[in-house]
Amino acid sequence: MTTQPLYYDCDTGIDDSVALAYLLASPEIDLVGVGTVSGNTDSAQAARNTLALIQVAGREDVPVAVGAAHPQAGTYAGPVPHIHGHNGVGDITLPDAARQPLSRSAADLIVDLARAHPGRLRLLTTGPLTNIAEALRREPALPRLVKDLTVMGGAAGRSGNVSPVAEANMANDPEAAAEVLAAPWDITLVPLDVTLAHTFDENDRRRLLESGRPLSTALGSMLDIYFEFYLSTYGRRCCALHDPLAAAIAVGGVTTLLAPVVDVVVDATHGPGRGQTICDLRGRYLGFPPQPGAHCRVVLEAGPGSASHILERVLTL
Amino acid sequence: MTTQPLYYDCDTGIDDSVALAYLLASPEIDLVGVGTVSGNTDSAQAARNTLALIQVAGREDVPVAVGAAHPQAGTYAGPVPHIHGHNGVGDITLPDAARQPLSRSAADLIVDLARAHPGRLRLLTTGPLTNIAEALRREPALPRLVKDLTVMGGAAGRSGNVSPVAEANMANDPEAAAEVLAAPWDITLVPLDVTLAHTFDENDRRRLLESGRPLSTALGSMLDIYFEFYLSTYGRRCCALHDPLAAAIAVGGVTTLLAPVVDVVVDATHGPGRGQTICDLRGRYLGFPPQPGAHCRVVLEAGPGSASHILERVLTL
Repeated sequence: MTTQPLYYDCDTGIDDSVALAYLLASPEIDLVGVGTVSGNTDSAQAARNTLALIQVAGREDVPVAVGAAHPQAGTYAGPVPHIHGHNGVGDITLPDAARQPLSRSAADLIVDLARAHPGRLRLLTTGPLTNIAEALRREPALPRLVKDLTVMGGAAGRSGNVSPVAEANMANDPEAAAEVLAAPWDITLVPLDVTLAHTFDENDRRRLLESGRPLSTALGSMLDIYFEFYLSTYGRRCCALHDPLAAAIAVGGVTTLLAPVVDVVVDATHGPGRGQTICDLRGRYLGFPPQPGAHCRVVLEAGPGSASHILERVLTL
Repeated sequence: MTTQPLYYDCDTGIDDSVALAYLLASPEIDLVGVGTVSGNTDSAQAARNTLALIQVAGREDVPVAVGAAHPQAGTYAGPVPHIHGHNGVGDITLPDAARQPLSRSAADLIVDLARAHPGRLRLLTTGPLTNIAEALRREPALPRLVKDLTVMGGAAGRSGNVSPVAEANMANDPEAAAEVLAAPWDITLVPLDVTLAHTFDENDRRRLLESGRPLSTALGSMLDIYFEFYLSTYGRRCCALHDPLAAAIAVGGVTTLLAPVVDVVVDATHGPGRGQTICDLRGRYLGFPPQPGAHCRVVLEAGPGSASHILERVLTL
């Protein structure tokens, strides 16, 4: 089996940590680089978290680059300690990483990797799209240079999570999101519609904690605060699998059941819809006939076994 | 039974015609006035259609006022002959009405009726909200003077019909819609989410055509072009019951099954979300807990027998 080179852009983050573990455990891909961005935590802390997690997994081969500290058109609003803890990883203590991040920026790493693997590099993002937009400006041919782009973010036919219509990754940098989703990549958008439908609960957390494996145990610990936050969404201790599901879809580990290719536009106004991913789902009653020029596959449903697939794969680490 | 005074504001329109018939046949309400607005057709033609339909129904007692020719912040875009025909009523010929519209504007009629029935008048709109916004400016106490307001319009968790997120009534005058939905009325919003789920099909149309009743026969005739348009939505000849369903909900003839009271804001920017009714449905997983200050009931589901209830009632005319 030929492994596919994959670059992962994230704001590590509890669910980013689970996604990172999933990617490290995935034989289908070769994780050739990770870049960080400010979102769940700031980009520098996200890089510290990422390097520490990779070290806990016993891997030393994955380069990590610090990305944008601030969104394209503003200032980073700061971390969300009630969701991801003060350090982004649920306030658990990870060992300091022996390695340092690259001196290159995440945007430069993306462009370098795309040129090193022409037509083959796959991109996966689970944070704001600031680094991807910056890379796109440095190399306008990027959409043709890479194989595809999978984006966790947005809300298509369901509510947002930071406004009635906007999801956090999009809302944290709507200008970047608008630019990236308008560029002619082969995009797979993994919005809240599908990620909220796949959860880890206390049984899954217990299996991580009792696995005897260092990275899985760390993930089980950090999920505690995350489960607590999700009481306000689900009314019970559990969590949505936003970033891990996007990773599993990018890798091909889970099956998508409903994923039409439709026009998607990001609202970058300063009105009440700011940050919304406006997906044209008007063809729903007709089974989503083709929309000429559309290049964004919007995942609305994934296989019912997705959560257990993610858990089993992470438990191998 | 005490009948409730109800004012109906519409852009007559094929489905407005069905709604008008439903209201004329409803013993629960006393139709004390109709005002017209430009939407499906222009407000003057809508008044001609309304007067003619009322006459066909054998009623002479319902005053009709012509309302705004243009939206609050622009120029009327013109009728939609491929949906409602060139004359708004599917290009069927109705007899010229013997009566004329009132010399008062629709906005003046609303204010006069509200003052004549303090605390009792119910408002129903199935067109753009231009007249209601104008009445609100003439009488800022209007939300306290009337009993409630039922609005057919918007899309809450489903797609729009004139853009991926905007429904026609809202998109035709977003400034008026924003003003009206922000005012402190007791509002019931009947969006596409529920109206697209209730349809008339060829069997229903045949029953109207074969009823031997003048108004029902006219409705059956005008539905022909409307059914043809809905091929592009449903892939079969039928039509959504947008306006009749709103009328039936206002009157209490059909039951709502899911109708949370939530915050609603209309996007009046000039961005890609213009005209969207942004409804805060984030409480869905928790059964929609109360939102302090919310005063808009958004109907997401109505009883499965709604279409046949509407048909049977219309057939009595």
